[in-house]
Amino acid sequence: MEDTAAAVETPVTVSTFGVSRHPDTARLVLSSPKPPGVREEFVGVVRKAFRPRASGGGGAGRTPPARWGWALTALQTVFPVLQWGRTYNFKLFRSDVMAGLTLASLGIPQSIGYANLAKLDPQYDTSVVPPLIYAVMGTSREIAIGPVAVVSLLLSSMVSKIVDPAVDPVTYRALVFTVTFLAGVFQVSFGLFRLGFLVDFLSHAAIVGFMAGAAIVIGLQQLKGLLGLSHFTNSTDVVSVIKAVCSALRDPWHPGNFLIGCSFLIFILAMRFIGRRYKKLFWLSAISPLLSVILSTAAVYATRADKHGVKIIQRVHAGLNPSSASQLRLSGPYTVDCAKTAIICAVIALTEAIAVGRSFASIRGYKLDGNKEMIAMGCSNVAGSLSSCYVATGSFSRTAVNFSAGARSTVSNIVMSITVFIALELLMKSLYYTPIAVLASIILSALPGLIDIKEALSIWKVDKMDFLTCLGAFVGVLFGSVEIGLAVALAISFAKIIIQSIRPQVEVLGRLQGTNIFCSIRQYPVACRIPSVLTIRIDTSFLCFINSTFIKERIIEWIREEVETSDEKARERVQSVILDMSNVVNIDTSGISALEEIHKELASLSIQMAIAGPGWQAIQKMKLAGVVDQVGGDWIFLTVGEAVEACFPATAADPAPP
Amino acid sequence: MEDTAAAVETPVTVSTFGVSRHPDTARLVLSSPKPPGVREEFVGVVRKAFRPRASGGGGAGRTPPARWGWALTALQTVFPVLQWGRTYNFKLFRSDVMAGLTLASLGIPQSIGYANLAKLDPQYDTSVVPPLIYAVMGTSREIAIGPVAVVSLLLSSMVSKIVDPAVDPVTYRALVFTVTFLAGVFQVSFGLFRLGFLVDFLSHAAIVGFMAGAAIVIGLQQLKGLLGLSHFTNSTDVVSVIKAVCSALRDPWHPGNFLIGCSFLIFILAMRFIGRRYKKLFWLSAISPLLSVILSTAAVYATRADKHGVKIIQRVHAGLNPSSASQLRLSGPYTVDCAKTAIICAVIALTEAIAVGRSFASIRGYKLDGNKEMIAMGCSNVAGSLSSCYVATGSFSRTAVNFSAGARSTVSNIVMSITVFIALELLMKSLYYTPIAVLASIILSALPGLIDIKEALSIWKVDKMDFLTCLGAFVGVLFGSVEIGLAVALAISFAKIIIQSIRPQVEVLGRLQGTNIFCSIRQYPVACRIPSVLTIRIDTSFLCFINSTFIKERIIEWIREEVETSDEKARERVQSVILDMSNVVNIDTSGISALEEIHKELASLSIQMAIAGPGWQAIQKMKLAGVVDQVGGDWIFLTVGEAVEACFPATAADPAPP
Repeated sequence: MEDTAAAVETPVTVSTFGVSRHPDTARLVLSSPKPPGVREEFVGVVRKAFRPRASGGGGAGRTPPARWGWALTALQTVFPVLQWGRTYNFKLFRSDVMAGLTLASLGIPQSIGYANLAKLDPQYDTSVVPPLIYAVMGTSREIAIGPVAVVSLLLSSMVSKIVDPAVDPVTYRALVFTVTFLAGVFQVSFGLFRLGFLVDFLSHAAIVGFMAGAAIVIGLQQLKGLLGLSHFTNSTDVVSVIKAVCSALRDPWHPGNFLIGCSFLIFILAMRFIGRRYKKLFWLSAISPLLSVILSTAAVYATRADKHGVKIIQRVHAGLNPSSASQLRLSGPYTVDCAKTAIICAVIALTEAIAVGRSFASIRGYKLDGNKEMIAMGCSNVAGSLSSCYVATGSFSRTAVNFSAGARSTVSNIVMSITVFIALELLMKSLYYTPIAVLASIILSALPGLIDIKEALSIWKVDKMDFLTCLGAFVGVLFGSVEIGLAVALAISFAKIIIQSIRPQVEVLGRLQGTNIFCSIRQYPVACRIPSVLTIRIDTSFLCFINSTFIKERIIEWIREEVETSDEKARERVQSVILDMSNVVNIDTSGISALEEIHKELASLSIQMAIAGPGWQAIQKMKLAGVVDQVGGDWIFLTVGEAVEACFPATAADPAPP
Repeated sequence: MEDTAAAVETPVTVSTFGVSRHPDTARLVLSSPKPPGVREEFVGVVRKAFRPRASGGGGAGRTPPARWGWALTALQTVFPVLQWGRTYNFKLFRSDVMAGLTLASLGIPQSIGYANLAKLDPQYDTSVVPPLIYAVMGTSREIAIGPVAVVSLLLSSMVSKIVDPAVDPVTYRALVFTVTFLAGVFQVSFGLFRLGFLVDFLSHAAIVGFMAGAAIVIGLQQLKGLLGLSHFTNSTDVVSVIKAVCSALRDPWHPGNFLIGCSFLIFILAMRFIGRRYKKLFWLSAISPLLSVILSTAAVYATRADKHGVKIIQRVHAGLNPSSASQLRLSGPYTVDCAKTAIICAVIALTEAIAVGRSFASIRGYKLDGNKEMIAMGCSNVAGSLSSCYVATGSFSRTAVNFSAGARSTVSNIVMSITVFIALELLMKSLYYTPIAVLASIILSALPGLIDIKEALSIWKVDKMDFLTCLGAFVGVLFGSVEIGLAVALAISFAKIIIQSIRPQVEVLGRLQGTNIFCSIRQYPVACRIPSVLTIRIDTSFLCFINSTFIKERIIEWIREEVETSDEKARERVQSVILDMSNVVNIDTSGISALEEIHKELASLSIQMAIAGPGWQAIQKMKLAGVVDQVGGDWIFLTVGEAVEACFPATAADPAPP
């Protein structure tokens, strides 16, 4: 044993920690008030959740309590536009118009491309209605609402499994709107019932892996447009897609599509590079997709390249955003499948929107109200589902453009929405000749932003288990499907928590020389064990059925080893065991019986047991279960220091105050 | 604020906690060695698990290292009988024979009754082969192996759903043996791969509720025998059974069955009461079931009551425990269902056996090796499945009789097994006239022991959530099925752990006057907050994706409230925030970003952030992720006391040692 030196010094150090020996502290543990019960906790949580909170603007706080003040406050809570609208001025509006126009130039080609990814015709355009609704309900000032790549893929891959869009496009479309409607309803209810924590279930690591996998899957899907293939697979996994591409390439194919796609992809990427290099030219990257669409459409129209194998959109019907309320299928054979898809889309869409919103809010220094955001997003989607839109959410790439273009409020979303509507209404006919390869290149150009290798490397560096979650999501999406990737990520994440609970650390403590600080002798090798006292810290916040047997057996094993390895003379030296329960916040009946069994075992070996610093819920339950009486109220202490002191009555008695 | 008094006193108390200010302690946190990584932890767990452990007897330790010593030790590990067999003597043998004979008198009627409960004929007797195998492999000295009520019910109710025994008894029997075989294989693999913790998944509270529900369900099943009904339901839930009984009672029925059943039930219960009252007459309760069988059979035979509507066993074939190896169905359409049933039976059987074994081992003062027990139990069941037995385990009632009758080793199981075999072989023919109502009364008499109302009340008193688990299991078994009850109990138990992780406590700390002890001001209202410092303790052992947003928002909210509620002058007083992370053992990347965001928020408010006592894994990951550099290595402390001291540089500078 290495603590012989400490043994000699102990009597000296004991006298120096008189400071923590206060006549009352030991009794405090047992006389603490009753902690709030399950019911009080629940009532408290509910009351707190529904308490109206003064939000961002600060204008509402100073409103005098008028007769209609209550109604105004309620309205302002639902429609934040009423709050910030008062201080809105022309200068802000000018910034917003500029930002909205820039946003529209990016939004038009993206919304056509993502509609294609979602296996819908270009007139099913999601960039018009949802941003309008969000603008009056949302709390984020920079977020740009519209279709995003991952949700488009998720929706099309999951709904394709219910109904094949190639076989029955009408039902497919109806189901897409139904899923959008239900997703909106789910999002609103998450907000109303304060279920914001559901979004946290997808950890950051899982999202990094999921997004990277989805980006690769989306990229592979674009091979269809880029290579101008006619037959393709509905599956999204790498293996099926590569097989489909290989088998398609055996037939004759037209390199024209590939040439158009690649050249415009290079063009867009080059513009983006320039936009990043020279901050003032950032608008180049914003308008390059629109420019690509115009140039390629004009070129195809001029050369009639569609006669020579270049695939074009063709299916263009006038009439943007017609009512789709009659298409919703809220009963019938597909409803359960739709609800399943909707809940996944709702969570993924919210996760992305809230991540985007929070990161830009923190740059500007204000705080998003997660629950309000969910309600706003949900209402946008419900409204969207009634006007031929599919699930919309906050897009990272467009929000960044919006921010760089100087957006100051959600008015930029309104400007964007109106611009897109007018542009598409006027130009829809001319989209007939737009080559599909250009849409593919626009989508492809947005993908590198979804693959964050640097973040994945930093996760690997910091936390191997988190990296496993990330990898699980990535591999699951890539080789299984989007749902499998999500399920794998969730399973690994929750397994991590359960494993952490099943096998908590149990540490032997030692004292830092010359102090009254006790810490793990593994973490702090300079700490010395105190002779004749074994101090053990239980490192779990919930001593429960899943870990109590493990902890009990580990502690009893240590005690037996201590007793057995020491010879007859030394055996007398292990006289007390102190359980440091300061980390144990809560305990259940299994944990209590584990403590009772440890106490019984120690009693059979004539070793004194002491407990230090149990948590609030823990001490309450120990009192109720009678463990306190078994151990003896005198042997329950606030700190390890006091417990150690009590184990040396002779030396401690001298310097104690009366 | 209530700590104005403390504010005045602070300069005085600061000087008294000089004891914990040690020049080195602050730097210790950052210089601690690297904690074992995931791989090292895993290797350590595996190595520890497979390290041979010296078990109970103590004889092996003194064996000189002979040439064949290694093989002998290995054999002794697998067959503990080789260890304790050496010191076994005639006196112990005499006790065991007496205990074995007493056990047999209880075992014969019970094994016929439980076979009936499992919907098998009486010759499929589980009290012969499994105890013999267990006797040479088990480590418990008192446990009595054989059929038990709950497992018999579980098996029959689950296998009945695959194949109806009334329609196809041959397949039913084959599936029962297959399930038994697979359950044995699962149990052996649990033991080999040290998966003993699986047994912990069913918490004590869940078992109390489950057993009580199962007892009522079993009792209701016995109404068929007790009332002499011919048609009955295969469902086990209360509603179906009561419906079946009501509809059956509309037909004419014979009160003879009911009379026989009730009178023998009263006889058995009376004998047990006497046995409990006068410890010396405990054998009365042990032999009363056998006596009931003999008396009732003789009475029926004498009066030919079976001609007057008294139901008798009838189906009796000679030949006890024939080989059933050829009946196992390890491939085919039912295998997956069988495996599912087998894993549930395996876990329930082990849970019961280990609970029984542990409680009696702790009375006698030795420790059971859980993993060895599982292997022994699994081998018993594999052997049993090959000789027409179904799942056997440790029975609580018979183990108690065995213990009271003075069993000293597993030899009593061997004696019991041989006695049962001889008795049934000789008397099987005479079982023809045994009334089924007596079997029902024997099973009914064993049920009150399974319903532990006192324990349920004490669970209610101590832990409401645990009581919910208990109630969930009870209601699930009673109104759903055995599997639903188990699923409900598991779901509530795991939800408890997840909820505990999702919403951890975050506490504001204060100092106990005149000491250097910091504790929650809610738990210890006497603790006083230190002016200008906000000390917050994070009460979770794993700061992870599921709780990091909640903790971050709670902390930021508090800080903002502090800043906002105080007026301009007072605002200057909140100058530092100390996060006490002594409870945080581990952290993941989401937790790390939460810390970073708290730090950013505090920096924007010009408040200093300090971290005290982070756990081993936590500080390591914070170092890797660069949080330590952001916060500043000088602002990470071992204890809250030191951190508080550092927040008062002026006063702290005076008494500090050079």
